[in-house]
Amino acid sequence: MKDFEFQNPTRIVFGRGAEEKVGAQVAGYSKNILLHFGGGSIKASGLYDRVTASLRKAGVKWVELGGVKPNPRLSLVHEGVKLCKEQKLGLVLAVGGGSVIDSAKAIAMGAVIEGDVWDIFVGKNQPVSALPVGTILTIPAAGSEASTASVVTNEEGWLKRGFNSELIYPRFSILNPELAFSLPQFQVACGVTDIMAHLMERYFTNVTHVSFTDRLLEATMKTLIDLAPKVLKNSQDYDAWSELMWAGTIAHNNLLDTGRVGDWASHDIEHEISGIYDIAHGAGLAVVFPAWMKYVLHQDLNRFVQWSVRVWNVEMDVFDPEAVARAGIAKMEDFFHSIGLGTHLSDLGIPSDRIDEMADKCTGGNTRTIGNFVKLGRDAVREILLLAK
Amino acid sequence: MKDFEFQNPTRIVFGRGAEEKVGAQVAGYSKNILLHFGGGSIKASGLYDRVTASLRKAGVKWVELGGVKPNPRLSLVHEGVKLCKEQKLGLVLAVGGGSVIDSAKAIAMGAVIEGDVWDIFVGKNQPVSALPVGTILTIPAAGSEASTASVVTNEEGWLKRGFNSELIYPRFSILNPELAFSLPQFQVACGVTDIMAHLMERYFTNVTHVSFTDRLLEATMKTLIDLAPKVLKNSQDYDAWSELMWAGTIAHNNLLDTGRVGDWASHDIEHEISGIYDIAHGAGLAVVFPAWMKYVLHQDLNRFVQWSVRVWNVEMDVFDPEAVARAGIAKMEDFFHSIGLGTHLSDLGIPSDRIDEMADKCTGGNTRTIGNFVKLGRDAVREILLLAK
Repeated sequence: MKDFEFQNPTRIVFGRGAEEKVGAQVAGYSKNILLHFGGGSIKASGLYDRVTASLRKAGVKWVELGGVKPNPRLSLVHEGVKLCKEQKLGLVLAVGGGSVIDSAKAIAMGAVIEGDVWDIFVGKNQPVSALPVGTILTIPAAGSEASTASVVTNEEGWLKRGFNSELIYPRFSILNPELAFSLPQFQVACGVTDIMAHLMERYFTNVTHVSFTDRLLEATMKTLIDLAPKVLKNSQDYDAWSELMWAGTIAHNNLLDTGRVGDWASHDIEHEISGIYDIAHGAGLAVVFPAWMKYVLHQDLNRFVQWSVRVWNVEMDVFDPEAVARAGIAKMEDFFHSIGLGTHLSDLGIPSDRIDEMADKCTGGNTRTIGNFVKLGRDAVREILLLAK
Repeated sequence: MKDFEFQNPTRIVFGRGAEEKVGAQVAGYSKNILLHFGGGSIKASGLYDRVTASLRKAGVKWVELGGVKPNPRLSLVHEGVKLCKEQKLGLVLAVGGGSVIDSAKAIAMGAVIEGDVWDIFVGKNQPVSALPVGTILTIPAAGSEASTASVVTNEEGWLKRGFNSELIYPRFSILNPELAFSLPQFQVACGVTDIMAHLMERYFTNVTHVSFTDRLLEATMKTLIDLAPKVLKNSQDYDAWSELMWAGTIAHNNLLDTGRVGDWASHDIEHEISGIYDIAHGAGLAVVFPAWMKYVLHQDLNRFVQWSVRVWNVEMDVFDPEAVARAGIAKMEDFFHSIGLGTHLSDLGIPSDRIDEMADKCTGGNTRTIGNFVKLGRDAVREILLLAK
């Protein structure tokens, strides 16, 4: 176990109708805020009305900025920053999924600096403060509702960059599982896969003596495997949604990598795929992970065996541990298929003619490696993409 | 799963030599603090010197108040409050185990009110603020280093009362597993049992659809069962201690009862035993829990079966679930024996002649019940104590 510092101050307000408590939460920070959201779904569903009623009741005024798209854009962040500065807004309230929350976090950092917030994402500036951010989560997936991360895309050059800081932990996040009832099945499957990926990126580590967090990660993976089929079968299953939503938060709130070093190569590879082809992040991860696992299996076969036995209930075979490990990977592929996702690039209609290009971009023309469990150069990434094709 | 609010803002600073970072942590809050500790062990071990060197380096001045005893006393809390008020101290730094931390939390509340802090413990006053508390943990057991709880004993009438408030979450807690190397084996065993008890009190609930937190609780119990024998075999086993220490914090930082209702009858019964007989809290819990379990088994046999199979690796027997449940309890008793604890009152040298008295006190003369999984009146507590004798 490695030394670590851990703090997660986000207040979670969890339950049916919890969004009606948003006014009271917000008012503790500011009476003049930016209300940030995506498309029109929150208006169509009535969520917007409930949120603004609660704000009004608490005496909170708001300026609206909708229109956040998946892979949130820097240009909209700039608009939000301008609004916050001009109108002296004191909090950014994100109502939506990971993209809306990531965009809100970027605005919160940009609102208190002189220069361009993009400088922070490319390492040319370091934030020393940020406006408080609050969230009402509508999609269990990205875990941004209790994380230090924000990922933003600059349309000039379509550069997608992430930044981590404790300054942008949301001050509060409101989790009402009912808000997930209306999600399309494909989006649910992608969300589940994103959560699984957050757990697996953390699970595959070379740090030893991490049996406690291993077990917590396994527990969370098993929860997902049990509950995803339930919410896909019955989208109104509050009980299953509630556990799934909470698991999605815990999967990415930094608790489960205390003392560990995660891998994150699969996320990097997926970003290159979705950078070229317009696919959902979760759908891309369901393709990359099995291929990555097959490629890195022998880095620590025992770790894969433990994962297969404990998470996927593969029977131990001490005489053939590799078969046990591969059976776990096969069960994971079966799981992805069962929730409606493909596990090969071809399933997504992606040809294999730009694999070299993706491998090249992913490693900066082979000038850097990705991943920590195994450090992967251009050729290794290319091999993984070939296994995924 | 029940609705909940959860927030735990305690910053954990974890690792070898972490106490040397205390000055920097403290200085963020105050340069003039109360340094609170127990007996002389922190001076004998050199910990005191390292802590004060770090404080000095950060320009922090301190006033000392040592002498905290197990079951921390109100009279010493009063002394601490007086020092904080007179010398305008801005933070209480607890260096020790649960008793020192609980005492520090009480001082932190008392330092900012006009009247007696005891009024808070007996429900006659509600705190609206508290001085910040920081901790350097020396004994993994009570979980007070990241909890909302403080338990204090008033020598007038020997009343032991607890109070919970988010105001007394420590702002930071420094966890260096090396500090546990010098603990006597009996104290280690009692600490492990206290942690197990915190998990079991939360595990046995009537709330349904809590499979996620069930699994997290099981994961933490399994970690304890694996690692306790290691630190008892080799007190210098940093790797085992590090996981055990972190598990002890997670077991009681309010995360693992999100959406659940814990039981806590066993804690209440144990308090009556240790109120009369001078026994360690953990040693008492090892006696009460098996008896409590045997008494409440049929409240939810399935829950006991799940616990036996998952935590204690009892083989499932669908034709005789009660035998499976009882085998789990037997394995828990074996575990307590293996770490050097008894599981009967007689093992602690406690006679059975005051069982009626304890059952009576525990339930306020049968005017109230204890526990949530099963609500226990006087007769039920008496039965449990008879099973424990």
